[in-house]
Amino acid sequence: MRLILCTVAMLAGPAMAYEPLVQKQEFTLTDFVTRGGETIPEMRLGYETYGTLNEARDNAILIPHFFSGNSHAAGRYSADDLAPGYWDALIGSGKAIDTDKWFVVSVDSPVNLGANDPNVITTGPASINPATGEPWGMDFPIMTIGDFVETQKGLMDQLQIPKWHAVMGASMGGLQSFEWAARYPDRLERVIPVIASGWADAGLIAWLDVWAAPIRLDPNWNGGDYYDAEPPEAGLAQALKIVSLQANSAEWANATFGRSWAKPDADPGQSWDNDYMVVDRLNMAGATRARTSDANHFLYLVRANQQFVAGHPDGNLFQGLLDIDVPVMLIHTDEDLVFPGNAVRETGAIIKSDGTPVKIVELEGTNGHLDGLANLAQAEKQIKSFLEEE
Amino acid sequence: MRLILCTVAMLAGPAMAYEPLVQKQEFTLTDFVTRGGETIPEMRLGYETYGTLNEARDNAILIPHFFSGNSHAAGRYSADDLAPGYWDALIGSGKAIDTDKWFVVSVDSPVNLGANDPNVITTGPASINPATGEPWGMDFPIMTIGDFVETQKGLMDQLQIPKWHAVMGASMGGLQSFEWAARYPDRLERVIPVIASGWADAGLIAWLDVWAAPIRLDPNWNGGDYYDAEPPEAGLAQALKIVSLQANSAEWANATFGRSWAKPDADPGQSWDNDYMVVDRLNMAGATRARTSDANHFLYLVRANQQFVAGHPDGNLFQGLLDIDVPVMLIHTDEDLVFPGNAVRETGAIIKSDGTPVKIVELEGTNGHLDGLANLAQAEKQIKSFLEEE
Repeated sequence: MRLILCTVAMLAGPAMAYEPLVQKQEFTLTDFVTRGGETIPEMRLGYETYGTLNEARDNAILIPHFFSGNSHAAGRYSADDLAPGYWDALIGSGKAIDTDKWFVVSVDSPVNLGANDPNVITTGPASINPATGEPWGMDFPIMTIGDFVETQKGLMDQLQIPKWHAVMGASMGGLQSFEWAARYPDRLERVIPVIASGWADAGLIAWLDVWAAPIRLDPNWNGGDYYDAEPPEAGLAQALKIVSLQANSAEWANATFGRSWAKPDADPGQSWDNDYMVVDRLNMAGATRARTSDANHFLYLVRANQQFVAGHPDGNLFQGLLDIDVPVMLIHTDEDLVFPGNAVRETGAIIKSDGTPVKIVELEGTNGHLDGLANLAQAEKQIKSFLEEE
Repeated sequence: MRLILCTVAMLAGPAMAYEPLVQKQEFTLTDFVTRGGETIPEMRLGYETYGTLNEARDNAILIPHFFSGNSHAAGRYSADDLAPGYWDALIGSGKAIDTDKWFVVSVDSPVNLGANDPNVITTGPASINPATGEPWGMDFPIMTIGDFVETQKGLMDQLQIPKWHAVMGASMGGLQSFEWAARYPDRLERVIPVIASGWADAGLIAWLDVWAAPIRLDPNWNGGDYYDAEPPEAGLAQALKIVSLQANSAEWANATFGRSWAKPDADPGQSWDNDYMVVDRLNMAGATRARTSDANHFLYLVRANQQFVAGHPDGNLFQGLLDIDVPVMLIHTDEDLVFPGNAVRETGAIIKSDGTPVKIVELEGTNGHLDGLANLAQAEKQIKSFLEEE
């Protein structure tokens, strides 16, 4: 959401942006087979890199992104770009993820929310199905977080990177981090899942469905078949509004808007045309973000997250976490309404139970889940030294 | 929701139901003027009573209800009634609210959600506007919690009760309790707001709007004009689903459903026709409850709650709470996602700041907000002795 993005930008503070101008790059995987056994003939995805891959090819750090995010993690596309990438405060010369030392690879996910964002390259229901020449719609194969990781493995092979020095991501990016560590313990050195737990529990599954409900109710959604008509922008905007609210906190809403009306003379007690400022601003942010997003992609992201169990060990929630053998740093906040603190701590306890080293860093802040994006610079020293551990 | 109601009934345990069979009664107020200055020619509302009004008429306790509730607080309508009223564990002979001693009056609110429930008597947008002979729809005057209290004041006058011995209610019933104490400090002896705070903060205002959004997106809602067509049941069901989820807890969802699929062989990773059990059951509960509910009434309840500031002191959040001079017992739980613990404690601190006695009782439980309905018997002794204080 614009609101989230603005907040991130403001809270990120005055640190210099990652210096070289950033360019989106793309890679293609052919005949990509999903966990469900379906084939996507052409999987085109975007990525960005910051820093330089060394000769030993052993200084690469992978950053998968969060639910409503994309691969723009640092820097600016042009000198007059309004805001840098979402973790610019952490990624750059001399920063926690020091681009003088590390080569950072940040990748767009399949079914990325920003299907209509010119800075996103993704493949999903809004893409053309080569078999029909029409957009896939809901015929696009259902994706999993594991499938996202497989696309990143494809890029890793294309870039000839034998092993990630680290995989680090926030929220859905944290799920991908867990998945990498559980699935490919020999292809990474360490993992930093931020504001994320080791599986989607029933609470998260249900809330993700609440996020999706407005899209399905919008008559323009039409079972996902809207690519030659008006898209379900109203439903998508409401879906994005819920994400915005749940990813933040009551403390933020109170401090930012209080009980103010959207317009000073328009009492919500007098007319249905009037509303509260907090509602009005969340609606505006949702509507703005909906314009560059795709409703079906939102539904695919919801289902990918709902299915998540690290390492996909069918029938066993813990096996994937026990398979993690590289050092883990979990960063989270107890005020998180999306991935509650106890779920993160339980995840850590399971990973640690067979001797895997686990560090837990607690963030302070007033932005709930979003603190993991906006206020992560707090953990700068811990991240820096964790990356430098032998 | 059925799900909530079942849970309440199960958790309420084996205590004997309030004994005499209960009958819904009704009262009418004519030319009721709302806070917004509009007139409702005929305000018909239901109520129930438990116990007997004494000769001194000084043993009456008022119980306003929660958002999705009604005046059925105790007892059964018939011998084969499946479940008693929602606080039956607390109301009855020898119970916390001892009907051998107290006369309990429980009142249906205006714009009650259960407009199509045969056991609810209410007046709202689904009622006939005498001026047109048609349902009011969204032309019904916007209501406030203060207006709800005024209807109860009307009943109080009709029953010739000079003073309530206590006013006690949960959630929206707690808001009405605060409102009574702030508005009519001379007409009650004490107040017990349960799982409620002294004003709707920006967080609550925004979440209430999230609850309402699915209704507005349902094309059958049609701007509130659906009384001669298909009602927006799908949107209303989704709205009720969100209430169900937010009123409970992740702990409950995990313990009850975990990551189970709705049907054992129907993997949500394989088809959009499949879903998780937690989603399926919440959908079913929402759909069942929607059948006896009215979508416009839901929207009016949302707006009434959003507007709430105890005592309605325009421009001053605290004055109404400072106007409370009767002893207060606040009962709440920190795990509440609707009225967070810190908002309740802050409310208590403000009331107490000018010397008004405030007791705070913390509930234990795993059902979040719902613990204030389902697990209130924990506070039995405290409630009993608070009611008996001179």
